[in-house]
Amino acid sequence: MPYVNIRVTNEGVTPEQKLQLIEGATDLLQRVLNKNPATTFVIIDEVETDNWGVNRQNVTTLRQREAAARNT
Amino acid sequence: MPYVNIRVTNEGVTPEQKLQLIEGATDLLQRVLNKNPATTFVIIDEVETDNWGVNRQNVTTLRQREAAARNT
Amino acid sequence: MPYVNIRVTNEGVTPEQKLQLIEGATDLLQRVLNKNPATTFVIIDEVETDNWGVNRQNVTTLRQREAAARNT
Amino acid sequence: MPYVNIRVTNEGVTPEQKLQLIEGATDLLQRVLNKNPATTFVIIDEVETDNWGVNRQNVTTLRQREAAARNT
Amino acid sequence: MPYVNIRVTNEGVTPEQKLQLIEGATDLLQRVLNKNPATTFVIIDEVETDNWGVNRQNVTTLRQREAAARNT
Amino acid sequence: MPYVNIRVTNEGVTPEQKLQLIEGATDLLQRVLNKNPATTFVIIDEVETDNWGVNRQNVTTLRQREAAARNT
Repeated sequence: MPYVNIRVTNEGVTPEQKLQLIEGATDLLQRVLNKNPATTFVIIDEVETDNWGVNRQNVTTLRQREAAARNT
Repeated sequence: MPYVNIRVTNEGVTPEQKLQLIEGATDLLQRVLNKNPATTFVIIDEVETDNWGVNRQNVTTLRQREAAARNT
Repeated sequence: MPYVNIRVTNEGVTPEQKLQLIEGATDLLQRVLNKNPATTFVIIDEVETDNWGVNRQNVTTLRQREAAARNT
Repeated sequence: MPYVNIRVTNEGVTPEQKLQLIEGATDLLQRVLNKNPATTFVIIDEVETDNWGVNRQNVTTLRQREAAARNT
Repeated sequence: MPYVNIRVTNEGVTPEQKLQLIEGATDLLQRVLNKNPATTFVIIDEVETDNWGVNRQNVTTLRQREAAARNT
Repeated sequence: MPYVNIRVTNEGVTPEQKLQLIEGATDLLQRVLNKNPATTFVIIDEVETDNWGVNRQNVTTLRQREAAARNT
């Protein structure tokens, strides 16, 4: 009966990638703890980049700095 | 001071139904644990069906299979 | 497939009360949204009173003040 | 490595305000527990007012009542 | 910067199994979404079986019924 | 009505430090968004170091490596 909550920034995750996350997390719980896939929930939250902070800045700014660094 | 988080798939929950969930959860905490409704929070998260997985598939696919089975 | 997370302070909730919360929350989701009990998860988190704050104080202090007020 | 999740109602929080929350929460963890900002996550969830309940009512209704009281 | 929260019942998960969950979830996010392991958090919550409900019963009772069925 | 959930590793956080986190988070929400402290919840979760992973390792191991590096 595991519950897995995956939170990532909202940056174009495709339905196919979401399905891979669901399959992968379910398989992981089955492999390691022998949990039944029929009662394994996987919920993916996509968070806007303005709403996710790390190192005192939001990810919107972080991505702009990464892009600027690549273009230098 | 309870905090209740209800996560359901985003499949047309109406404002009236949300209110019923808020009222019902608040009443439940008051009835069972004598918690004060004035400081009982109920937060409902609606999750896209592509983002909710159970049994290694997403709910989008699950709903399609349920509909197909009904039409057979 | 709902997921319900109930967070309350750790102040002597009995197994019987926990079961009432599980039953009540499951019934609520079935009544309001016609959700299947077989895939409704209810998870109760008991939080130490030192770890729960409201109105800038922790619940440990809040309970002491409530008790003092009753004894005055 | 703290993880801070701030949930507020979706009522016009600006990107600048979100950044202040990110900075403030990160600084708080550094000041009190000496946590490294580089691995402090702050995630802000904005919840629709229909989906947030307190005192058995949703915040949509609560705001209408507050506005009505101010206009009386 | 993903955040992965795995909630399972508290039924003897070993430190080695926890590490396998951490490694597996981190690898999954890197493989599917190219996320950096250095900023991938995985947090495992172990929930008492009295506190986890499914199908209107707690897992404590569910495990007893499973054991009884095996012994019949 | 904000809800703030602070998750940190369980490494000897004192009641006084927890209170500082509660006060600081409440003040932050009041200062930035004018939220009422009376209905601001702050919940602190302390997570065992075996249960928190970053960079594909658990924090138990991370702390041992940090200690070893300091002693070299």
